[in-house]
Amino acid sequence: MQSQTRIPPPRSSGASLADWRPDRASPQPIYAQIAGYFRAKITGGDWPEGMKLPPQRELARQLGVNRSTVVAALGQLAELGLIEGRQGGGTRVAGKEDPPWTAGSWNDYVEEGTHYPNLPAIQAINRLEFQPELLRLGTGEPAPELLPGEEMRSILAELAREELPLPYEEPLGSLRLRRAVSAELGRIGIRAEPSSILILSGALQGIQLVSLGLLPKGAAVLLEKPSYLYSIHSFQSAGVKLHGLPMDKRGLVTEGLEDLAARAKAAVLYTIPSFHNPTGILMDAERRRELMERAAALGLPVLEDGAYQDLWLDAPPPLPLKALDGKGQVLHLGTLSKSASPGLRIGWVAGPEQVIRRLADIKMQTDYGASSLSQLAAAKWLEDGGHKRHTDALRLALRRRRDLMLELLERHFTELAEWSKPAGGFYVWLRLNKPLPLPKLFRAALAEGLLLNTGDLYDRADARHLRLSYAYASPSGLEQGIFKLAELVRRMDRLF
Amino acid sequence: MQSQTRIPPPRSSGASLADWRPDRASPQPIYAQIAGYFRAKITGGDWPEGMKLPPQRELARQLGVNRSTVVAALGQLAELGLIEGRQGGGTRVAGKEDPPWTAGSWNDYVEEGTHYPNLPAIQAINRLEFQPELLRLGTGEPAPELLPGEEMRSILAELAREELPLPYEEPLGSLRLRRAVSAELGRIGIRAEPSSILILSGALQGIQLVSLGLLPKGAAVLLEKPSYLYSIHSFQSAGVKLHGLPMDKRGLVTEGLEDLAARAKAAVLYTIPSFHNPTGILMDAERRRELMERAAALGLPVLEDGAYQDLWLDAPPPLPLKALDGKGQVLHLGTLSKSASPGLRIGWVAGPEQVIRRLADIKMQTDYGASSLSQLAAAKWLEDGGHKRHTDALRLALRRRRDLMLELLERHFTELAEWSKPAGGFYVWLRLNKPLPLPKLFRAALAEGLLLNTGDLYDRADARHLRLSYAYASPSGLEQGIFKLAELVRRMDRLF
Ligand SMILES: Cc1ncc(COP(=O)(O)O)c(C=O)c1O
Ligand SMILES: Cc1ncc(COP(=O)(O)O)c(C=O)c1O
Repeated sequence: MQSQTRIPPPRSSGASLADWRPDRASPQPIYAQIAGYFRAKITGGDWPEGMKLPPQRELARQLGVNRSTVVAALGQLAELGLIEGRQGGGTRVAGKEDPPWTAGSWNDYVEEGTHYPNLPAIQAINRLEFQPELLRLGTGEPAPELLPGEEMRSILAELAREELPLPYEEPLGSLRLRRAVSAELGRIGIRAEPSSILILSGALQGIQLVSLGLLPKGAAVLLEKPSYLYSIHSFQSAGVKLHGLPMDKRGLVTEGLEDLAARAKAAVLYTIPSFHNPTGILMDAERRRELMERAAALGLPVLEDGAYQDLWLDAPPPLPLKALDGKGQVLHLGTLSKSASPGLRIGWVAGPEQVIRRLADIKMQTDYGASSLSQLAAAKWLEDGGHKRHTDALRLALRRRRDLMLELLERHFTELAEWSKPAGGFYVWLRLNKPLPLPKLFRAALAEGLLLNTGDLYDRADARHLRLSYAYASPSGLEQGIFKLAELVRRMDRLF
Repeated sequence: MQSQTRIPPPRSSGASLADWRPDRASPQPIYAQIAGYFRAKITGGDWPEGMKLPPQRELARQLGVNRSTVVAALGQLAELGLIEGRQGGGTRVAGKEDPPWTAGSWNDYVEEGTHYPNLPAIQAINRLEFQPELLRLGTGEPAPELLPGEEMRSILAELAREELPLPYEEPLGSLRLRRAVSAELGRIGIRAEPSSILILSGALQGIQLVSLGLLPKGAAVLLEKPSYLYSIHSFQSAGVKLHGLPMDKRGLVTEGLEDLAARAKAAVLYTIPSFHNPTGILMDAERRRELMERAAALGLPVLEDGAYQDLWLDAPPPLPLKALDGKGQVLHLGTLSKSASPGLRIGWVAGPEQVIRRLADIKMQTDYGASSLSQLAAAKWLEDGGHKRHTDALRLALRRRRDLMLELLERHFTELAEWSKPAGGFYVWLRLNKPLPLPKLFRAALAEGLLLNTGDLYDRADARHLRLSYAYASPSGLEQGIFKLAELVRRMDRLF
C-alpha cells in the first residue's frame, strides 16, 4: 500500500532519518520497527529509486541501535526487493516500476497483519528446540522420558476399541472431557460445572481468546513483571497495554494495587500464582486472599494462569484464586501440557457461563474446537486416575532434578549469581551479580551448543536473569550445561 | 469503560435515540449494535438511573428493526444488569452505584473484544447441531456413518504400538505429516515441499491466521458472493473489508476483475473454486486459467480454499489454482474435515516459504500447533492409502445421496424453486421462486424439527436461497425433511 502523492527529493541525497527513533517500549522488535520505517519511506516515495543509504555503522549510530539490528532490518528490506547492494556502491533503494495498488504477491504481506511477530529470539528458540544436538537449559516442558508414553499408548489401545468422535465437537468441547476437568478442578477447590468450562487447544489459546474476545483495544492489563505474558504477543497484538507489578518472595505485591490499577485504568489482572513463569515464585495463601479482596473491591477481573498448579515439589500450593472467588471475578486457565503432554494440546478455562460462551464462540471462529482425539484421550487420562498417578511420579523425578540443579548452581555459580529454591514448577530464576548483554550471551551459548531462555524475553529491560529449567535436560546434560554456562558467564563478565 | 464527563439529562425524560440507527452493512449483528449503543448511553451517564425506556414496539419503530431484535438487545442489557423491568413501570435504566473505571467483572466484557461474535443464527446452529432429535438439512459435514470409524480405530491400534509424539511439535507441524501432505498435494498437481506447508487445526484456522498475520487493517478482500467467508467473522473482525464478486455457472466471473480490484484497492482474492460453499459451483478449467492470468497481471494474491477439492462426484475437477501458479501468487488451503474427520482438526496451507513461516509464527502464538496425536493419525491415514480408499467409497455414497436429493427436489419443489445439479461437494443451492423472510423460515423449520442453513448466512441481503446438504441427513431423513420443508415453504409463500 502506498500513498498517492510523492515528494521526490533530490535523487542522490543521503537518507535523512530526521528525528525518528525506534520505540523501545513497543512490543514490536526494534529491527522490524526500523524496517517498517524505511519501507514506508521507500514505498511512499520519500526515498527514491537509486538513493544511497548511509553505511550500516552510521545508521546504527544515528538510530542508537546495534549494528546487528541494522543488518537485520536491511536484510528484510532486501528480501522484499526494496533495497539492493551494488558492487562498490553501498546499499541503494532498489529500482522498481511504479507499483500497482497492491505489492503483488503474498511475500509482500509478510510484514503486514495486525498480529505482531514473535520476538526474533523466541522465533529462534521455537526453531532451535528441534535441533536434537542442542542442550536445552531453559525449556518449558518436561523431558520426553518424563512423559507418560507407556500409559498413553495403552489409552490409545483402549480407544481403538471404542466409538471414535470423528465429527465436529460441541462449541464448549466434549462433555465427557468437561466432566472430567470439572472433577479435576474440584480436587483443587474449584467448583465449576461442565457448562462453565471451555476446552482449549492448550492454555495459550485461552490467553489468545481472552485478548480477541473480551478486551477492548487499548485496555490495560496488570501483570507480574517479569511474566510469561511478555514472551508472547497475544495481548499486545490485540492492542492491549501491559503494566508490570512488582513481585517479592511471597508473589505479586498487592500493596498499592489500587493506585496502580486506577492510574493504569486497568481492565484485567493476569497472574501466575503457583510456580510463576519465569521466577518460580509461589504466591502464599495470605497474599492470595489479599489479592482477591482487593480485586473484588476494585472490580478488577482476574485471569489466573494455573499452568503449573499441580507441579508442587515440597507441599501442595495454597488454593487457586478461583477457589476463593464467589463472584465470577476469576477466569482460571489449566493445561495438560506441563505434566502429561504438550503435544496433546489440551487445556481449559473455567469461569462465568456467559463469559465462557463468548470465548467458545470466538474459538468456533478460530478453529472449530480442539482435536476430538486429543479430547477423548485426555478424558480417559483424567477419568482413569492415570493423571494422578503420573503427576505423583513426575513430582518425584522433578524434585530429584531440581535438587541436582541447586547442587550444580551451588558448585559453579556461588560467585556469579543468586537464586532461590523453587517449591514447584520447572524454573530457577538465576540473578547474575553483574548485568550482561543477554542477547550476546544467548548467541555465545548457542555457539557452544546451549539453548538459553534469557531474562529479557520476560522483561524487555532485564539484563541480569536467566530462566533455567531442570525439567528438560538430562541429569548429565545439566551437569555439563551448568558447568559450561558458568564458564561462559565468567568469560563475558570479564568482557563487559 | 465510561467517559469522564457526564451530562445528566432530566431524570424522567424518555430515552432519545437522536438519529442513531444500526448499520446494516456492518458484520456486527443488529441486536448487538443496539445493545452496544444503549450500553454506551447508560454507562456514559447520558441515560441516568431510573430513566424509563420507550416501549419495545416504539423502539422497534424508531430504529427501523423487528421487535424481536429489540427484545434480543434488551435481553442482553438486562443480563448485564444495566436495565430492569419494574412491575407496571415498563423498562428502566437499572440503579447502580457510581461504577469504578472498570465495570467490575468478566461478565461486563462479554460485549468487548476486537473479535465480532458469530451471527446469532450461526451461534444457534453451532449449538443446535448437538440436539440429536433435529434433522440437519444444511450441515457442512458428512454423516457419522460415512466417516471411517473402523479404519481410524485400526490406525489407533497401530499407534498404540509406536513411539508417541507427546512433546510440543515443530512450528510448521510434524515433518512426517507435512511429507504426507506434500505427496497428497502432488496428486492434484501442486508441488509443495514440506517446508512450504504449515499444518493447521483445520482449514478455518488458515483463514484466521491469514487475517491476523498477513492483512493490514482495512485491507479489501474480493470473494465470491455468496461465500462461506460471509458466515464466519475472521476477516471482518480483523478489520478487513469484503467485496463480493458475481458468479455464474462456470464459477467466479473474471470479466471486469481489474476494474473491481482497482476500485476496491483489493489486497487479496479469496475463492472456493471446487464445489463452492454454499452454491456447489465448480469453476471450470478455462475460468481458472483466466483468473490466474488476471490475478498475476494485477499482482493480486489469491487465497484458494480447496476444502471440497477431493469430493468430486462425476469427474475429477480441473487442477487447483495453486497448480497453475508459478510465482507464489496462491496460498492453498486443504483439510481432512470434509472427507475423513472434522473432529481430528487437521488442515494445511501451502504457499511461499517466507509466508508460511510468518503464518507458523502466528500459529505458535495462538495455540503452539495442532494436536500431535491428530497429526500422527493423519499422517498414517494419508501414508497407508486409507485416505484414497475412503474417499473413493465416500464419493459413491455421496453420489447416491445427491441423486436422491435431486429426485426429492424434483418431486416436491418443482413449483417452488430452482436448483442445479452439483458435480461434487455437499450442497444444493436452492433458489426459491418467491423471496421469503429467511430468519422466520429458519425458526418455523426449527419448530418442526428441521435445522436449516439459510442463504442470508452467506450473503446478508439474500432472501431467496437455502443451502441444502445431502451429506448429513440419512436417506429416510432426507425424504421426510424435504417433504416437510416444501410444505413449510408453501405455507410461508401464502403468508408473505
Ligand atoms: C504460565 C504459562 N501459561 C501457559 C502456557 C501455555 O501452555 P499450553 O501448552 O497449555 O498452551 C505456558 C507454557 O509455557 C506457561 O508457562
Ligand atoms: C469452504 C470451507 N472452507 C473451510 C472450512 C473449514 O474446514 P475445517 O474443518 O478444516 O476448519 C469449511 C467448513 O465448513 C468450508 O466449507
